Amino acid sequence: MNSQRQSPFTLFHQSSESKARCGQVDTLHGSINTPVFMPVGTQATVKSVTPENLTELGAQIILGNTYHLFIRPGHKLIQKFGGLHKFMNWNKPILTDSGGFQIFSLKDLATITEDGAAFKSHLDGSKLFLSPEDAIKVQEALGSDIMMVLDTCIPYPATRQETQDATDLTSRWALRCRKSQSNTGQLLFGIVQGGMYPDLRKQAAHELIEIGFDGYAMGGLSVGEPKNLMHDMTEATIEHLPKEYPIYLMGVGTPEDLMEGVYRGVDMFDCVMPTRNARNGMLFTSQGKLVIKNSRYRDDNRPLDERCSCYTCRNYSRAYLRHLFTCREILAYQLNSIHNLHYYCSLMTDIRKSIADDRFLAFRKNFYEQREIST
Amino acid sequence: MNSQRQSPFTLFHQSSESKARCGQVDTLHGSINTPVFMPVGTQATVKSVTPENLTELGAQIILGNTYHLFIRPGHKLIQKFGGLHKFMNWNKPILTDSGGFQIFSLKDLATITEDGAAFKSHLDGSKLFLSPEDAIKVQEALGSDIMMVLDTCIPYPATRQETQDATDLTSRWALRCRKSQSNTGQLLFGIVQGGMYPDLRKQAAHELIEIGFDGYAMGGLSVGEPKNLMHDMTEATIEHLPKEYPIYLMGVGTPEDLMEGVYRGVDMFDCVMPTRNARNGMLFTSQGKLVIKNSRYRDDNRPLDERCSCYTCRNYSRAYLRHLFTCREILAYQLNSIHNLHYYCSLMTDIRKSIADDRFLAFRKNFYEQREIST
Repeated sequence: MNSQRQSPFTLFHQSSESKARCGQVDTLHGSINTPVFMPVGTQATVKSVTPENLTELGAQIILGNTYHLFIRPGHKLIQKFGGLHKFMNWNKPILTDSGGFQIFSLKDLATITEDGAAFKSHLDGSKLFLSPEDAIKVQEALGSDIMMVLDTCIPYPATRQETQDATDLTSRWALRCRKSQSNTGQLLFGIVQGGMYPDLRKQAAHELIEIGFDGYAMGGLSVGEPKNLMHDMTEATIEHLPKEYPIYLMGVGTPEDLMEGVYRGVDMFDCVMPTRNARNGMLFTSQGKLVIKNSRYRDDNRPLDERCSCYTCRNYSRAYLRHLFTCREILAYQLNSIHNLHYYCSLMTDIRKSIADDRFLAFRKNFYEQREIST
Repeated sequence: MNSQRQSPFTLFHQSSESKARCGQVDTLHGSINTPVFMPVGTQATVKSVTPENLTELGAQIILGNTYHLFIRPGHKLIQKFGGLHKFMNWNKPILTDSGGFQIFSLKDLATITEDGAAFKSHLDGSKLFLSPEDAIKVQEALGSDIMMVLDTCIPYPATRQETQDATDLTSRWALRCRKSQSNTGQLLFGIVQGGMYPDLRKQAAHELIEIGFDGYAMGGLSVGEPKNLMHDMTEATIEHLPKEYPIYLMGVGTPEDLMEGVYRGVDMFDCVMPTRNARNGMLFTSQGKLVIKNSRYRDDNRPLDERCSCYTCRNYSRAYLRHLFTCREILAYQLNSIHNLHYYCSLMTDIRKSIADDRFLAFRKNFYEQREIST
C-alpha cells in the first residue's frame, strides 16, 4: 500500500553516545513521552490498582489484551459502553494487542490457517475464530489508541522453514489488517517477526514498511531465548526500521531488559512482570530484587526502597508489607503492585531525562553499579 | 472500684421520639461522632481498602482484632513500631477487642479457667494463654484508643447455669482488667454478657457500673438468636446502663440491625458484613441488596446505587463491576468494599443528621419503605 500517514512520533533528542532516543507519540487520548513502559491491564484492569493509582505512579499508557476482552465481556459490550476507556475509567492512551500472542499460547486449542486463527476459549471451550480483519474490527470496537496487527508468533527454538512460513503469513495478515482499517484515527502498528534469523527479520521489516504503519513492533522475542540473542535480534531488526516511527519491543521485560532495549533504540515496552511479581511478593528496588516474605524483613522499619517516592514507600514499612503478604491480605497486592509499577515508570522517567541531558551511558552504568549493592 | 473517670461521651441531641441519640466520643486520636459504624480491620488492615479510601468513604474509627494481632505479627513488634496506628498508617481512632470472642470461636482449641483463656493458635497450633491482665497489656502495646475487657462469650442457646457462670466470670475478669490498666489515656469499655436472660444482663450491667468503665458494650448478641430476641436483649440491657457513657453493640450487623440498635439507644457498632459481603459480590444499596454476579447486570450501565456518592458509584457501572467480579479481579474486591463501607458510614451520617433534626422516626420509616422497591 505504502499510503503512509504522518508519523505520530516526534523526536526530542537522539543520544550522541548510543541509539537511545527520547520523544513523543501522539494518540487520540493524548501524547506519551518515550521511552515508555506500558503496564498491562489484561481484563480491563491493571491488576490490583485503580486508574488513580496508575496516574499517581506515573503511568502514561496501558495495554489491554484483545483476546481476553473478546472472550469476556466481549468487544460489543465494551463498544456499547463507549469503548474500553469509559468502561474501565481510564482516560489516557490504551494500546491493545491483537490477540495473536494469547492464541499462540493456547497451543493445542488453536489452529492457524491462511484465513486466521481458529481456537477454543480457555474459559468454556467454545469454538472461536479471529481473522486479521476481525482483529482490527474488535480493536476498533474497543476504541484503543494504538492497535496491533494480528501476527503469528514463532516459538523458540524454531526451524528456518517454520520461521519463514510464519513470517510470510504475518506479512500477508499485516496487509489485510491495514486494508480493513477504518478511518477512526486509531494508530495501527505492524509487528516484525522473523524468529532468530536476522535475514528473515530484515525481510519482515521491509514488507511491513512497504505496507506502511504508524509504528513498528518487534514480536517473538523474550520467548525463552538467551538474553544475548534477544539483544542481537533487537539490533538486527531496528537497523531496518524507519527512525521516524515509534519502535515497540513487545512483552519485555526486566528493568535490565528495558535499559538494554532503550540502549538499542526501543521506544515502547510492556510486560506483566511488575504486577505479577508484586502479587508474588517480589519487589523491584534501586538496589535489586527484594523478596518481602523473607524473615529478615520481619522487624525492618525501612521502606522497600529508601530512594523511592511511591505511595507505598512513603507510608509503609517492609515489616508491615511482610505482615500483609504473610496474611495474604488484598492490601499486600495493591501496595506491592503500586510500588513495582512506580519503579518501572520512574525508571523510564529517569531514562528519558538522562537521554535529554545526553548522559544516558553514565546513567546506565550507575544503574548497574547500584544493583551490585545488596539490600 | 468505682473510681470513675470523666465520661468521654458528650450528648448532642436526645431524640424526643425514641431512645436514639447523637453525640461525640473523645479519644487520644480525636473525636468520633455517634451513632457510628466501625469498619473491622482484623489483621492491621480493613480488607481490600487503603487508609485513604477509609477516610474518603467517611470512616471515623476502625476496629482491630487483638487475638489476630497477638498471634501475628505480635503486639511487641507493633509496639516497637510505635503502635498499631503507625504500623498500619491510620491516624484516626482505633478500638481493639480483647480477643475473647475469637478465642471463644476456637471452641475445641480453647480452655477457659478462672485465670484466663488457654488456646492454640489457629495458624500453627502453638499453645498460648491470655489472662485479663494480658489482654490489657497487649492492647496497651497496640496503643488502641478504646480497649475492651476480656470477656467470656456465651453460645446460643445456653442454659441458665452456663450463662450465670460465664457472666460471673466476665465480671471478675472485668475487675482484673480495670485494675491492671496503666495510665495511658486509653479508654476501657466493659462488656455486658448475660446471654438471653434479662435478669443476668441487669446483674452484669450493675457489676460493671460498680467497677466503672469509660463505656459499656453489649456482647453475646447476634450469635444466632432470632432478631426479636436480640432487640429485646438490647433493650433489657440498655435500660440498666448509664446514659452518660457511650454504648456499644458488638458485632452487629445488617443495615436494619444498625437502625434498630440506634432506635434503642446504641451509639457504636462494628461488623465484618460490609467488607465480607463485598468480597462475595453482595452490595448494599438504598433499595436493598444487589448480587453483582447476576446476569441482569451484564449490560447495566447504571452505578450500583444511583443515590450513592462513593468513589465506586461515581466512576464505574454495574456491568464493569460484574465483569471484574466474574474475572475475580482484585479491583472487584476493592471497589465493592469501598461501596459497602461507604453505604454503612453514610447511613450513619444520615442517621446522625435525622436525630439532630429530631426526625429520626420519619427517617427510619423512609429507610424501610425504600427497601421495598426492587432494583
